[in-house]
Amino acid sequence: MPATSLCQEEECPPYSLMDDYSEGAHPSILEALLRTNTTQQATYGTDEFSVAARQLIRDKIGCAEDDADIFFVPSGTSANLISIASCLRPYEAVITLESGHIACKEAGAIEATGHKLILVPPVDGKMTPTNLQKAIQQNQFFPHMAKPRLLYISNASETGTVYTKRELTALSAICKQSNLLLLMDGARIGTALASKKNDLTLGDIFDMTDIFWIGGTKAGALMGEAIVVKKALADGFVFHLKQHGALLAKGRILGVQFMELFRSDLFFQLATHANEMAQSISINFEKLGYRLAAETETNQVFVILPQQLVRRLQDRFRFYVWEQLDDGNSVVRLVTSWATDELEINKFNAWVQQWTIAAN
Amino acid sequence: MPATSLCQEEECPPYSLMDDYSEGAHPSILEALLRTNTTQQATYGTDEFSVAARQLIRDKIGCAEDDADIFFVPSGTSANLISIASCLRPYEAVITLESGHIACKEAGAIEATGHKLILVPPVDGKMTPTNLQKAIQQNQFFPHMAKPRLLYISNASETGTVYTKRELTALSAICKQSNLLLLMDGARIGTALASKKNDLTLGDIFDMTDIFWIGGTKAGALMGEAIVVKKALADGFVFHLKQHGALLAKGRILGVQFMELFRSDLFFQLATHANEMAQSISINFEKLGYRLAAETETNQVFVILPQQLVRRLQDRFRFYVWEQLDDGNSVVRLVTSWATDELEINKFNAWVQQWTIAAN
Amino acid sequence: MPATSLCQEEECPPYSLMDDYSEGAHPSILEALLRTNTTQQATYGTDEFSVAARQLIRDKIGCAEDDADIFFVPSGTSANLISIASCLRPYEAVITLESGHIACKEAGAIEATGHKLILVPPVDGKMTPTNLQKAIQQNQFFPHMAKPRLLYISNASETGTVYTKRELTALSAICKQSNLLLLMDGARIGTALASKKNDLTLGDIFDMTDIFWIGGTKAGALMGEAIVVKKALADGFVFHLKQHGALLAKGRILGVQFMELFRSDLFFQLATHANEMAQSISINFEKLGYRLAAETETNQVFVILPQQLVRRLQDRFRFYVWEQLDDGNSVVRLVTSWATDELEINKFNAWVQQWTIAAN
Amino acid sequence: MPATSLCQEEECPPYSLMDDYSEGAHPSILEALLRTNTTQQATYGTDEFSVAARQLIRDKIGCAEDDADIFFVPSGTSANLISIASCLRPYEAVITLESGHIACKEAGAIEATGHKLILVPPVDGKMTPTNLQKAIQQNQFFPHMAKPRLLYISNASETGTVYTKRELTALSAICKQSNLLLLMDGARIGTALASKKNDLTLGDIFDMTDIFWIGGTKAGALMGEAIVVKKALADGFVFHLKQHGALLAKGRILGVQFMELFRSDLFFQLATHANEMAQSISINFEKLGYRLAAETETNQVFVILPQQLVRRLQDRFRFYVWEQLDDGNSVVRLVTSWATDELEINKFNAWVQQWTIAAN
Repeated sequence: MPATSLCQEEECPPYSLMDDYSEGAHPSILEALLRTNTTQQATYGTDEFSVAARQLIRDKIGCAEDDADIFFVPSGTSANLISIASCLRPYEAVITLESGHIACKEAGAIEATGHKLILVPPVDGKMTPTNLQKAIQQNQFFPHMAKPRLLYISNASETGTVYTKRELTALSAICKQSNLLLLMDGARIGTALASKKNDLTLGDIFDMTDIFWIGGTKAGALMGEAIVVKKALADGFVFHLKQHGALLAKGRILGVQFMELFRSDLFFQLATHANEMAQSISINFEKLGYRLAAETETNQVFVILPQQLVRRLQDRFRFYVWEQLDDGNSVVRLVTSWATDELEINKFNAWVQQWTIAAN
Repeated sequence: MPATSLCQEEECPPYSLMDDYSEGAHPSILEALLRTNTTQQATYGTDEFSVAARQLIRDKIGCAEDDADIFFVPSGTSANLISIASCLRPYEAVITLESGHIACKEAGAIEATGHKLILVPPVDGKMTPTNLQKAIQQNQFFPHMAKPRLLYISNASETGTVYTKRELTALSAICKQSNLLLLMDGARIGTALASKKNDLTLGDIFDMTDIFWIGGTKAGALMGEAIVVKKALADGFVFHLKQHGALLAKGRILGVQFMELFRSDLFFQLATHANEMAQSISINFEKLGYRLAAETETNQVFVILPQQLVRRLQDRFRFYVWEQLDDGNSVVRLVTSWATDELEINKFNAWVQQWTIAAN
Repeated sequence: MPATSLCQEEECPPYSLMDDYSEGAHPSILEALLRTNTTQQATYGTDEFSVAARQLIRDKIGCAEDDADIFFVPSGTSANLISIASCLRPYEAVITLESGHIACKEAGAIEATGHKLILVPPVDGKMTPTNLQKAIQQNQFFPHMAKPRLLYISNASETGTVYTKRELTALSAICKQSNLLLLMDGARIGTALASKKNDLTLGDIFDMTDIFWIGGTKAGALMGEAIVVKKALADGFVFHLKQHGALLAKGRILGVQFMELFRSDLFFQLATHANEMAQSISINFEKLGYRLAAETETNQVFVILPQQLVRRLQDRFRFYVWEQLDDGNSVVRLVTSWATDELEINKFNAWVQQWTIAAN
Repeated sequence: MPATSLCQEEECPPYSLMDDYSEGAHPSILEALLRTNTTQQATYGTDEFSVAARQLIRDKIGCAEDDADIFFVPSGTSANLISIASCLRPYEAVITLESGHIACKEAGAIEATGHKLILVPPVDGKMTPTNLQKAIQQNQFFPHMAKPRLLYISNASETGTVYTKRELTALSAICKQSNLLLLMDGARIGTALASKKNDLTLGDIFDMTDIFWIGGTKAGALMGEAIVVKKALADGFVFHLKQHGALLAKGRILGVQFMELFRSDLFFQLATHANEMAQSISINFEKLGYRLAAETETNQVFVILPQQLVRRLQDRFRFYVWEQLDDGNSVVRLVTSWATDELEINKFNAWVQQWTIAAN
């Protein structure tokens, strides 16, 4: 599965731990595309593979066809902007973390659909009930303020932390009280559900949200996300897909991929691998006395390292230096994925250990 | 290459001639995805395959890197809405045929970006200089009217006709005089260029338009379109991709597909096959005395058939009945593609012939 | 009341019959503004004058406070774009005449809120049940077409004709069957209701539409329109006003004007004057053998005149030449208003008569 | 001029110090509307009064007709949304204070035009060069972040403070370096320029900004703001007015008001009165030992008062309690205007003094 390097070490490009989408698709998915390639299929998401994939996802959730509609879109930004534009009236606003993907990594895609974002500071990368309540209360001077109508959260969060059942239950309750819809961005929902800290099921998430989406792009697919929409909000949703260019003529290629991910436990197995690779990095750092900048709950490691070690690692690996600290240290982000090669992680850990011993 | 049916004829589902996107991708394209799958690549369209594909397309056009930027997006609707939104100011309008894809098949995608469409009746499926001039003149009562700023045409047109060099030159000249940009929707540009009636090159099209796009979805790819943007309009274009959810994290999968289509003449060969299959249908109909509703210039056949023949054909083939005529006849649309099986077309033609002889 | 000219005739600028908003406000309205000027009032439309004006309008309609909310906005374009944006979801479209104000005189304001317009040809300046049905039927290819959701009509129409009770009843019935909302643009609703051909009451219009608005700008106010919204659609409406810059801080100035127009029959009296002036022009033309291009039902006269007469009249009066006909004649539009000076109309008629006699 | 109360004190409603738009217009402005009412005028802002008002404003600025276009709109929200929508491309963002009017008092009007707001914390109610630089630097991860393109500031600020020449020069220099446009919201530019702390001229502001607007609504007009646009950005601006419903048919009523405000020094005299009334309140509070929550630089007083005094004052005056402090005190906002009655301010000050003496 991993992107093994047969080249001589000196000639190899640095191994990337920059993100979880630097490789193509899991081989089983490509095989499924090949296997199904020549049959003629209905178009725009009505093909038999998309129908089957929807049922497989509903089975994992444990809901009936009448409970939820499922739509496949090519990208996470599509998933977010379509979900939000579909259920808000023009004057309604979204509450999100300042660090939320829609707030700082999607080029203003939500505002481009006309909606205001109300920003809330994160705690451990997450929305807290207290901060949510405060944001609601501070945005009540109507009609001079846009009306808060939807809470957007990501699980796993932008810093790789996960929401516990207790945390999600509390947020969901506030949303119901305050007439807010709850949307969960699941670009990394696989690694969240596979986290050792997780106590949520897909069924819990379905029950406690109004819309959530299951990321395929970062979970072994070529591309594609599956948006799960409670029936009450599903009417007209497909028009939004079409209007935003996200209703693919050959919808089959999204259906086939999700069918392959969910007909067995492949989706969860791949996420578990990603998490284990991150754990391996994280445990090694802690064992050697380095401090983590965030708990390693999924497939992202945020660790504080001295500049010299950072530079040494950069000869062999690519990753983001997240933040320069004043004391000569940096926060470094290391991301693993379904495709991460265990041999490369072993080398990484060995180099860290070797440098640390030499430095002390 | 074609989607051959191994099933017994009686059990077979009717063969589809409904559209040119009922199958997956050309096998070479899937192979290219497999071959390149495991190398780690830069993301969001900066991978080496996308870079190479851009250069291959520029080579076919005959332009330099400084002349054009090329962007890959997942769908035709994305290509249109992003191209238009990128170069218009909010009060500027688009001139299009009433039958234009943006006018009646994209769920209001252009208006959703804020822009008015000015509708013009087609002649042979095409925009004429006279009708264009008239539309410009009738929309000059400023600032009460939105300002015409872009002409949108499709080649091949919605009825499968193609623009000749003379026709495109005339439209392009009016656009320049009237300060209009010219955008060509190339969802079926492959079959247009492979048409026997065609006398345009990709280079001509580049010279005479400001933006045009090359359709992959209908030309053998899983999905994807390549937007060719004159350098003067390219600044900031990539933000539009991101903002509209069309900048795929694994941009490589679009790059690989266009690399495969353009590193040889595969793109044009596939289009030629599609056109030949349509010619075969069309010639057979004419030989048997049926009247075409539009010239068969590319991969779409519009033919006037008696209802009984339509019903007979529907047992074996799927296609759109485009329009019911008053005299008991119907206009039927038959679409071929790169994947159309010649054996099926032979059967189709034989059945038409057999029915016609029996009916006379 | 009229803008009498005390200047010597030779020095006078030509008298304008171009439109119905070339003068300021009816003196009673200015007096009302003066009278109420110094009291401190609540802001943003919650002042006592706006409250009173709303009640006066409800009284004329004959509806209760629970039936309708009323909102004052500064312009007709505001009224249209806010009404439409408020009740449509992003993929929903508006059916309108090709000649509709929103279709050709508002600079793409509706599209700028994201909504598609579906254009229908007018008959006598009006929407017919047949044409409406046809537009609905031709726009059902979902989700590739935007979904028709609202019918927009104007009363009086753009050519000054009015909807009869029978006509409006038929359109309203189709809307209900087809799940369309019905919006009436009432920029000239005063002259429509004051038309000799009219058999509708404000109450009828309220019953048969979902939203309609009462134009003040063309009816004697400085500016301002009153949007009457059925209660079911009124929720959140005020946010739209604020978001589009139409919720004036000193909402009192709109309230005072509508209070003055509706506390007596001033609104209808002014409209009646406008209609009578147009009748006077129209009757004179017909008596002299000229042909009308449209029935003169309200305050607009469309008449076919020889070019020489047009030129002669242009020395003394300003008006639009609507269309040049091929036979040396032109269609000319003459608009009267609450402020039109009867003496000027008499002069106009006399000059027409004099020229006609001399020419024959 | 002020809204004097002739009623017996016991029966009088509390005198409002809530805002600067609770009264109508300055009497001279109403007189000007009366005086010009009956002449026929060209429409949509091309009337002779608007032309004259533009020239008067240019004269005060000291710029030529070729340097600036001036547009009149009915409200401050209109002025902001039109100015911003006119000069940004869809992916471009606005940098604003968290406390900016566009950020928290305009119901998401800017986002409704598609643009992201980047929020910056205020210092003394103002944008600082340091905070601006930081916001620019933190928003450079392209194309995943919207591109900062315009700085929005208000003068006077939301807390009544003013920008000095040194401060504005510094911000303007950063904008030029960073390719940002600079927009000044001048809803209260009159009181800013009349502030004792002010050292800016209208000419300075014109030179250092790209667009700024002069508020009429809060400065003695019935309504209306004058947007001053540098020539380079003025092309197409009028379409935006039309498209957003802000191009009044009777544009004359805005022209007349600004003509009256600027043909003498009325605009500045009214602002000076407002500031003096605020100074009077402020000085009295300080003399009596109360602490201000913000410097009183224009017509807003923010003062920290004990709850008992607040309640006592509320019997006689209306104002906003801005913030409840934990120690039993509150921040109270008192706003004066061109219409504020000096007698009422004297009473206010006397009551404060009386209560304070009694309480100690």
